[in-house]
Parts: sequence; structure tokens; C-alpha cells
Amino acid sequence: MSPGIFARDTAVRPSGEGVYASAICRNWDIGGKANGGYLLAIAARAMAAETGRPDPVTITAHYLSPGSVSDVEVQVRTIRSGKRFAVASASLVAGDRPLLQVLGTFGDLSAGDDTFERIEAAPPQMPPPESCVVQDPSNGAPRIFGSMDLRLDPEDAGFLRGEPSGLMRTRGWFRLLHEEPVDTLGLLLAVDAFPPTAFNARLPVAWTPTVELTVHLRARPASGWLRASFSTRFVSAGFLEEDGEVWDSTGRLVAQSRQLALLPRAAG
Amino acid sequence: MSPGIFARDTAVRPSGEGVYASAICRNWDIGGKANGGYLLAIAARAMAAETGRPDPVTITAHYLSPGSVSDVEVQVRTIRSGKRFAVASASLVAGDRPLLQVLGTFGDLSAGDDTFERIEAAPPQMPPPESCVVQDPSNGAPRIFGSMDLRLDPEDAGFLRGEPSGLMRTRGWFRLLHEEPVDTLGLLLAVDAFPPTAFNARLPVAWTPTVELTVHLRARPASGWLRASFSTRFVSAGFLEEDGEVWDSTGRLVAQSRQLALLPRAAG
Repeated sequence: MSPGIFARDTAVRPSGEGVYASAICRNWDIGGKANGGYLLAIAARAMAAETGRPDPVTITAHYLSPGSVSDVEVQVRTIRSGKRFAVASASLVAGDRPLLQVLGTFGDLSAGDDTFERIEAAPPQMPPPESCVVQDPSNGAPRIFGSMDLRLDPEDAGFLRGEPSGLMRTRGWFRLLHEEPVDTLGLLLAVDAFPPTAFNARLPVAWTPTVELTVHLRARPASGWLRASFSTRFVSAGFLEEDGEVWDSTGRLVAQSRQLALLPRAAG
Repeated sequence: MSPGIFARDTAVRPSGEGVYASAICRNWDIGGKANGGYLLAIAARAMAAETGRPDPVTITAHYLSPGSVSDVEVQVRTIRSGKRFAVASASLVAGDRPLLQVLGTFGDLSAGDDTFERIEAAPPQMPPPESCVVQDPSNGAPRIFGSMDLRLDPEDAGFLRGEPSGLMRTRGWFRLLHEEPVDTLGLLLAVDAFPPTAFNARLPVAWTPTVELTVHLRARPASGWLRASFSTRFVSAGFLEEDGEVWDSTGRLVAQSRQLALLPRAAG
């Protein structure tokens, strides 16, 4: 079986000591700029290769410059390699231009862990995927929506017809195309692939660029649809946070995310 | 006026190109180990000096090894220096032993920002500080509680008398001693200075070591008491998150934090 398009478009190959070559592909574009979760997945794949640990456990990216179609390089430095975890930093660069600086703790989440469990939240309740809203690139949606299967809860899709809900919330379903499994690297895409909460919030801005994104990974998702929910509670001082949760088809929390985004000053 | 003890205990001095010397002081000990927020503040002070930007805006630390009283060095690398923000990474090391790896975006939060504001949360409602619970080192509390003024909401202090509330929540008041102002570096201490939510949760563990801590800073606090609130919703797969909010005396959100902590496997 050939790899899915996400695995292919995030592939890296060693090209020097701690250096990995890759390429930003047009498939994950939003208005000519590569999705931030996609870029993080490229960096994380190189970090996983370099540390020999398959899964990011907690990973943070600071966004330095937008990425677009080009060859890129990931420069990885392993900072500590312990029994259970390895910590590494990485720079994703296009030529001389740094796009992303990343810091992550990597491990192996395949085994799971049967320690004490206590969950005080539940997956978002939504209509089934077939009753949710698809954004179609052939109708003007960003190209990225043709490269994955993302369905918005109709309650949170009003912004698409100029009727934002007014709530700083986005919920929906996510999967990759052609039954490509979503692994922990795929989750890095999932947490940044949904329309920003600002689109529903009636904020006086068109876009909220990401300053920083942190993702905690709890488990490799089971196969099937993922449910995701994103919300914002604090828009202040020119910033907003966006908190995300992703749940797998068994109802298990697989990722938590938080990003800090800018509310551009030129707003209005 | 002499600097307060927090400023003194986190002081750094340049000792080479991008290198700063400092020392871990006993004042911020918890059972012989330095508090993680205190260590992060030392690293952040060096990063602020190196980048020439006074305030961390978003900063992430991965904890590699516990710190205790010793000379330390902060090795800072500026990754990008832009008009508004600078991004830097730093290693806090004691001799050859790395304690912390840090990645941060720094700027200047003094001006504030008068853009659009929307807040969908409020500071925790608590009894006044004089009716809250003090942990006294002369009665066996960790030494750190003698170096700052931290008052626990009585509802969340039951664990101190062996009666944990059962709720994964900690709320309280925070200030530095002798009216030392809390700046954005002081907030890095504040978000990690409260007893862990696990203490109230009746989890089968004694301690939850921090893997990673991310703090978003929105503003420099006004003078006076800070109110803080910490909660956990997901204990699973051997991990838990702890989400924090810190509000200043004017009712403004000044910091948001999230840490990923380990639920030790040997629990029981």
C-alpha cells in the first residue's frame, strides 16, 4: 500500500548530521501559505527520526515566518535522551529563512498506560459527519480542505455564509483521505486545521496569525473519525488563545492544544 | 531601594557571548528541589537581557532534571529578532547537567494594547486573603512558602489536614514579600507556585513532576494581590494537564498557563 498523502507530504530524509530534507507541498495551503500544523508535523517527523522516539508527547512551535511551496530543511538537536523520553529542539528553515522553531518531548505512546484515569469533560456532541458542513476548494475554500476530510458542526459554520454564530467556538469532525490513519503527527495537523474561532466571533479582524502552538498528545488515535472542539475565552491586549481538544472514535481524548494568536493592530 | 528577594534570587550577569551566570537559591525549595517556575524565571531573565525585550509573551520550558542549590549558567540563542517580538531558546545548566530547555517569544508588554477586548471568564471568587490559608515553613511547609505570600482558598486547602476536596482545583492569592512588584518574570513563578491540583484530587500519587510548562503573558500586573486558579480535567495515559489563570488586582487576566505533568507509574 502506498503511503497516504499526509505521510507523503510530511516525509523527511536524512541529509546530514541531525539534518533532514523535506519539501512544503501545495496541498496544505491556505491562501498561498502552508498550514501551521502541517509545518509542525514535518519538523516533528524529523525530530522523531533523530531521537528514535515515534511520538511527540508535548511539542511547542513558535512561528517565525510563513511557509510556502519550497524545499525545506529541519535541523534537529537532541538535548536529552532518557529511558522514557527524549527532548529535542528543531529549526525548520527554507533556504536561509527560519519558519518555525520547535521544542518537543518525544516518547512511545503505542503501549498506552493503564494507570489511574479521571476525565472531567466529554467529546463535543454534534450531528453525524454526513450532516455537517464541508468546505469545498472547487467552491473557493482554501486548498487544504481538499487534502483532508473536515466537517464543521453546522452551528459553527455560519461564518461561511456571512452569519457568524457570535460564539468563539469551532467544532467538527476530522479524518485523512482514503483511510490514511491519523497518527500522533497527524494530530498536529488536526489541531490547527479547523477555521479559527475568530471566524465565528465577530471580531474586527480577518485573520489571527499564530505566534505559538503547543500540543499535548495522550494517545495514538483509534481508526475512524476524530471529533475536535476549539474555543477562545480571552481576547485581550492584542492576543487571543485558542484551546483545542481532539477525541478519537472510542471517545478517548487523544490531544489537547493551545495556541497564542495575534489580533492584528491594524484591525477595524 | 534594594531589590526584592525574587529579583535578587533570579538575577543573572553576562559571562560570555549569549551566556549568563546565575545561582539557584535555597529560598525557592520544595523538599530540596528548586521550584520549576523559579528556574524558568532565571532562564527568562537571561533571555530578556539577551534579546533586549523585557517581557516573555509566550514561553515554554521542558524539564530535564531537578535543580537544587548551585551555580547555574543560561546559554541563550536569539533565533529571530523582529520589530515587535524576538524569539530565543535557552538552556539552563548546572555544570554539565541540563535542567531546563526553554523556547520563548519576547516583547514589551508595558504599553498595553487598546484593541478589541472580549473576556468570557472571571477571576475566582474567594474569601479575602486574611481569611485564606497560609502554609508555614516553621510548621513543616516547604521552604518556598516563606519566600512569597501565598494564601489558599480554604475550600481548596483541605489536603493540608488530610481532607482533600476531591476536586482537581487549587485557588488562592499570591504576592511577593515586602511589596516587591510582580512583573512578568514574577508571573512565571506564580503559575507554578501553588500546590498541584493533584493534592486535592485523591489521585493515587504523592507528586506529579512537570514535563513541560507553557505560560502566555498578557500584561504586566497592577500592584496588589494576584488571584490565581488552577484546574485539571484530564488524567489519562499516565499524564495530567494543569491549566492556570492569574488575574491582577484590577481584575485583568495577566497570565494563562498549562503544564503537562506525569502521573508516576509506580503509583499505588
